[in-house]
Amino acid sequence: MYVSDCLTLNEKGHLAIGGCDTVDIASAFGTPAYVYDENEIIANCRAFSKSVERCYGGNGMVLYASKAFCCKEICRICGREGLGLDVVSGGELFTALSAGFDPRRIYFHGNNKTHAELCQALENGVGRIVVDNIFELRHLSELAARYVKTAEILLRIKPGIDAHTHDFIKTGQIDSKFGFALETGEAMQAVKTALQLENISLAGVHCHIGSQIFDIDPFELAARVMLDFIAAAKAETGFEIRELNLGGGFGIQYLKSDRPTPFEDYMEKVSEVIKSYSGQLGVKTPFVLIEPGRAIVGAAGITLYTVGAVKEIPDVRTYVSVDGGMGDNPRYVLYQSRYEVVCANKAAEKRDFTATVAGKCCESGDLIQEWTHIQPVEPGDILAVLSTGAYNYSMASNYNRICRPPVIMVKDGQPRVVVKRETFEQLTQNDI
Amino acid sequence: MYVSDCLTLNEKGHLAIGGCDTVDIASAFGTPAYVYDENEIIANCRAFSKSVERCYGGNGMVLYASKAFCCKEICRICGREGLGLDVVSGGELFTALSAGFDPRRIYFHGNNKTHAELCQALENGVGRIVVDNIFELRHLSELAARYVKTAEILLRIKPGIDAHTHDFIKTGQIDSKFGFALETGEAMQAVKTALQLENISLAGVHCHIGSQIFDIDPFELAARVMLDFIAAAKAETGFEIRELNLGGGFGIQYLKSDRPTPFEDYMEKVSEVIKSYSGQLGVKTPFVLIEPGRAIVGAAGITLYTVGAVKEIPDVRTYVSVDGGMGDNPRYVLYQSRYEVVCANKAAEKRDFTATVAGKCCESGDLIQEWTHIQPVEPGDILAVLSTGAYNYSMASNYNRICRPPVIMVKDGQPRVVVKRETFEQLTQNDI
Repeated sequence: MYVSDCLTLNEKGHLAIGGCDTVDIASAFGTPAYVYDENEIIANCRAFSKSVERCYGGNGMVLYASKAFCCKEICRICGREGLGLDVVSGGELFTALSAGFDPRRIYFHGNNKTHAELCQALENGVGRIVVDNIFELRHLSELAARYVKTAEILLRIKPGIDAHTHDFIKTGQIDSKFGFALETGEAMQAVKTALQLENISLAGVHCHIGSQIFDIDPFELAARVMLDFIAAAKAETGFEIRELNLGGGFGIQYLKSDRPTPFEDYMEKVSEVIKSYSGQLGVKTPFVLIEPGRAIVGAAGITLYTVGAVKEIPDVRTYVSVDGGMGDNPRYVLYQSRYEVVCANKAAEKRDFTATVAGKCCESGDLIQEWTHIQPVEPGDILAVLSTGAYNYSMASNYNRICRPPVIMVKDGQPRVVVKRETFEQLTQNDI
Repeated sequence: MYVSDCLTLNEKGHLAIGGCDTVDIASAFGTPAYVYDENEIIANCRAFSKSVERCYGGNGMVLYASKAFCCKEICRICGREGLGLDVVSGGELFTALSAGFDPRRIYFHGNNKTHAELCQALENGVGRIVVDNIFELRHLSELAARYVKTAEILLRIKPGIDAHTHDFIKTGQIDSKFGFALETGEAMQAVKTALQLENISLAGVHCHIGSQIFDIDPFELAARVMLDFIAAAKAETGFEIRELNLGGGFGIQYLKSDRPTPFEDYMEKVSEVIKSYSGQLGVKTPFVLIEPGRAIVGAAGITLYTVGAVKEIPDVRTYVSVDGGMGDNPRYVLYQSRYEVVCANKAAEKRDFTATVAGKCCESGDLIQEWTHIQPVEPGDILAVLSTGAYNYSMASNYNRICRPPVIMVKDGQPRVVVKRETFEQLTQNDI
């Protein structure tokens, strides 16, 4: 019925998430609020894990890309589900460790990790550091020596494939701030340097070809390019790279008209390529890692708002203002991202009202969705914006000094707070 | 020499702000860091105040639009300089009150103030509430009655002028979420309703025609339209509106090639229109308010970063990664905003190196500036991005769970922290 399976229409005609009435949630916890269905998150974790089990016979691991939505509780859930974690900063690492996440299952990414972050990763025994560039590689070697440790690393490679939603291009030299280039020989040189450097152990290679990808072809192509590189490295150095991290980028449904490829198909086809092509190349089938973020939390989350002013501008459009905005959801203003919007307390009614949902920020671009079809609304109604589980909380700001909303997790019909609402006192806590 | 007068090249060949070596600031307070010159802010405050004094004989007031940069210290500075304050949320109001700002000099804006915000405004005796819509007007009347207070209000009017930088349009029905429309009679009806409602005192009208405007014409036109409305309201109701708030939107220089109109010219020309045209219309010259935000703090602030990886992609471009990014400066990714960039410790060298300055976020769009001319840089250098005083700190997020930078205020060569750097503990303080 809705874009996400965890959403239903209940007997009161209200929108329910994980069996919990969203109108009750709004009333109990206030708005705006992010609400997630834990069972949906768990189901997504298990679906990915089972695919890895089935397609790679357990010779692989799922890492949750925590930049999509990071808080202690999501780390705990992913930990319990046996996933590893992809972190991209000291703050994400700190969060994961505070939640008791096993550091050996953490992969530390980033194009420009700071000295402090590399120290933090080494001190805490992070499983893998995904090295982005030669400067970092040398820096890490020196640091690891100082800590008398061996840094287990992956090298981030640019496979020369740039994929987005419905399209991808194969470029010789990808224009990206991330990783080592293949074509220039930079990547091969990095392998040789990594093998020579003290206190560095080269475990694998990593690539990431884009976000919100709907096709399998670019993933298959990336797998081939990476295996070619593993084979070439073996031929040149005699060293066989054993881990292949294929990153994330799996598209999800934001609108019902979106048609992402089921990720089971992705897993099956890409795993076939990896198994057969590594055989052809005469290299061992690598240990495979995948990094879903959005695909695990995106459709499991919604945002609830209360409608304030409804402003009809004749012959122009109708603005429905809500009590949040670009502060809690900057994705529309950033990328013109599409979302499905539902009036939670009138969910049984027809969505035959065309509206622009505006935020409360003093900025004319502060819109959450334009020309969207919702039920006719009035002040006090509760609006739900669907599939806001990824990159909404994580990108939220305090623009206009608006407090960030709480995160409510629903499990088996019971809601609980997992991130408390920010307070005015917290907004000014660092002000002198 | 630089886009902002508070910046100089010192005897060490370093960039200095307010007489303070930026390399020393980076070393003492770490990077990234926002740094402001207090004397520049004060000079801007005084320039606006003196213009109001000169052009309106004191029959006006300057309100600092705190959404441009809000913290306790900027409220204190504006308070000491005799400015009023334009706040747009409960959080900004809380900040101002915490800093001891006189509530009677605060104007509360917003297209969708919440019930809690209206209560907060009434409880604290805010000077004016700028009412955006009829729903809010009625709501405020009821609330004010409950508090046994009279709410002094302005009505936000859409003058049908939409101005941006080098261009403006006169539209009958402006497509905006803000304010009451003129052409439909909505604005006039709002005046009548305001005059009838209990516990409401109509003090004035407000308009805001856009941001970063470089011409005077649209401001003159807006002043005429608003005076026409004041005259029409007097004719229809007998009530003479006495305050005219013309909003902000004054453009500043981001690049040396930018040519904003000196605001003294704006003040002079607009004040002439107001004085002569109100006389023609037979209405009293109103008390005039203006709301500069960016024009007060924009050019007074810079952001300091440390260079990490420098990545040359042959025949493509060179990425210079810094230890901040779209988290502390989302304006490039949002609006492709242009900034001047200088290597602080090599400021005396020629800027003959073309680079893309990238942030450390795991997002390929995380760029601070593309194809900018800087000095040749290497890891460890300090980069200064200029004119970041407005809408950088205020729009900052914790994307990738990166801590927000501190704000350092320099006065007479002495730096001090006015907003402390965020800590990892604070990132997770609301996590359960």
